[in-house]
Amino acid sequence: MAKKAPRRTAERILSTTLALFNRFGEPNVSTTLISSELSISPGNLYYHFPAKDELVTALFEQYQARLFPILAAGAHVSDVEEAWFFLHSLFELIWEYRFLYRDLGDLLSKNRRLEKDVKDILLLKTSACRALLQGLGHQGHLHMQTSSREMCATQMVVMLTWWLSFEFAKDPRHALEDDNAQQALLRGAQHVLSLLVPYLEDASQAHLLGLIQNYSDESEQHPHP
Amino acid sequence: MAKKAPRRTAERILSTTLALFNRFGEPNVSTTLISSELSISPGNLYYHFPAKDELVTALFEQYQARLFPILAAGAHVSDVEEAWFFLHSLFELIWEYRFLYRDLGDLLSKNRRLEKDVKDILLLKTSACRALLQGLGHQGHLHMQTSSREMCATQMVVMLTWWLSFEFAKDPRHALEDDNAQQALLRGAQHVLSLLVPYLEDASQAHLLGLIQNYSDESEQHPHP
Repeated sequence: MAKKAPRRTAERILSTTLALFNRFGEPNVSTTLISSELSISPGNLYYHFPAKDELVTALFEQYQARLFPILAAGAHVSDVEEAWFFLHSLFELIWEYRFLYRDLGDLLSKNRRLEKDVKDILLLKTSACRALLQGLGHQGHLHMQTSSREMCATQMVVMLTWWLSFEFAKDPRHALEDDNAQQALLRGAQHVLSLLVPYLEDASQAHLLGLIQNYSDESEQHPHP
Repeated sequence: MAKKAPRRTAERILSTTLALFNRFGEPNVSTTLISSELSISPGNLYYHFPAKDELVTALFEQYQARLFPILAAGAHVSDVEEAWFFLHSLFELIWEYRFLYRDLGDLLSKNRRLEKDVKDILLLKTSACRALLQGLGHQGHLHMQTSSREMCATQMVVMLTWWLSFEFAKDPRHALEDDNAQQALLRGAQHVLSLLVPYLEDASQAHLLGLIQNYSDESEQHPHP
């Protein structure tokens, strides 16, 4: 068999590392564990990524590259159904890179790249939520004063960013396992969107409550263990 | 000079450890650093606390002992001014033990006592917020359906618990320093309480917006650097 190309190996390393980080938390995964999981030598891993930090940074760059287009779509949300879809897409991406959120404090204090870029991401998330609220306002679906809009955009960002931490703290042994993804994401999207409910005009309010109710029923059919 | 009593030494160890954990984050503080900061031998530290985990647990117990009476007061809140005071007291305590919140994910995966008790604390916080909303409802200050109340209590808990993580992520080098305490706590209390604004009857709404505005002015006079 031909030797695998370096690019292919780097991709395999990253996807295995992501799975291990998500499962055990970044602080609990050593480069030895990563190379043994991949059945490659520590020297081969070192050739591609000379430090664990570079694995974190490379995964973070993948996350950013996928986050930016989703956030940009926030400005084009024109009704509550699209708002639901927007939040759900964001939560799905956060779930895929959940290790970043589980130990964010620790990662921020160890990795300078994250220290700078996570701050920018929070600002971008806030702009995206603000644009979403403005868009719903322009379409006549939502009535919100500027001061309330700023507060609400910040509340949405905090809830979006730390919802999985809340799920994890409630049930550290199971919350971040793949089987629980769908329910955790639905609960997150429901709680973020319900921030808008009191500001929506009647038809949109009924529409949103209907969406929340439908998805609640779905998550009750597959209850959290 | 007489030799210090063991109890006194244990207290000194805990208060120094708390300051170091808060400043540098628990994962970045070794028992060697703690004993050197206290000018005691590693053996003396070991005599009182045979493992770093026991320091974490002892500090967590202090935190719990102070948290429970504050949460119990949630049921007796009868107007928005008391709600503001309730949230401010909670935020002040969280600030004092902020290391618990900065690296919560990591601590939960390493310490079985925290794993169990943090879950209970989240339930107690949710009950306290629910009781506060019910109390304001009974007094006629707030109109909220049961389903909205459950969502809102959960939103309050997520915002309360991860607000300092948000402040930290926005400015990891300064956010958790003592000079920034007052402003960070005010912003947190404002954002949690503003969740209630659309549900309050007119006089309470004006009262709460006035409180938020007053404290915003105060925090602008001492701006965040």
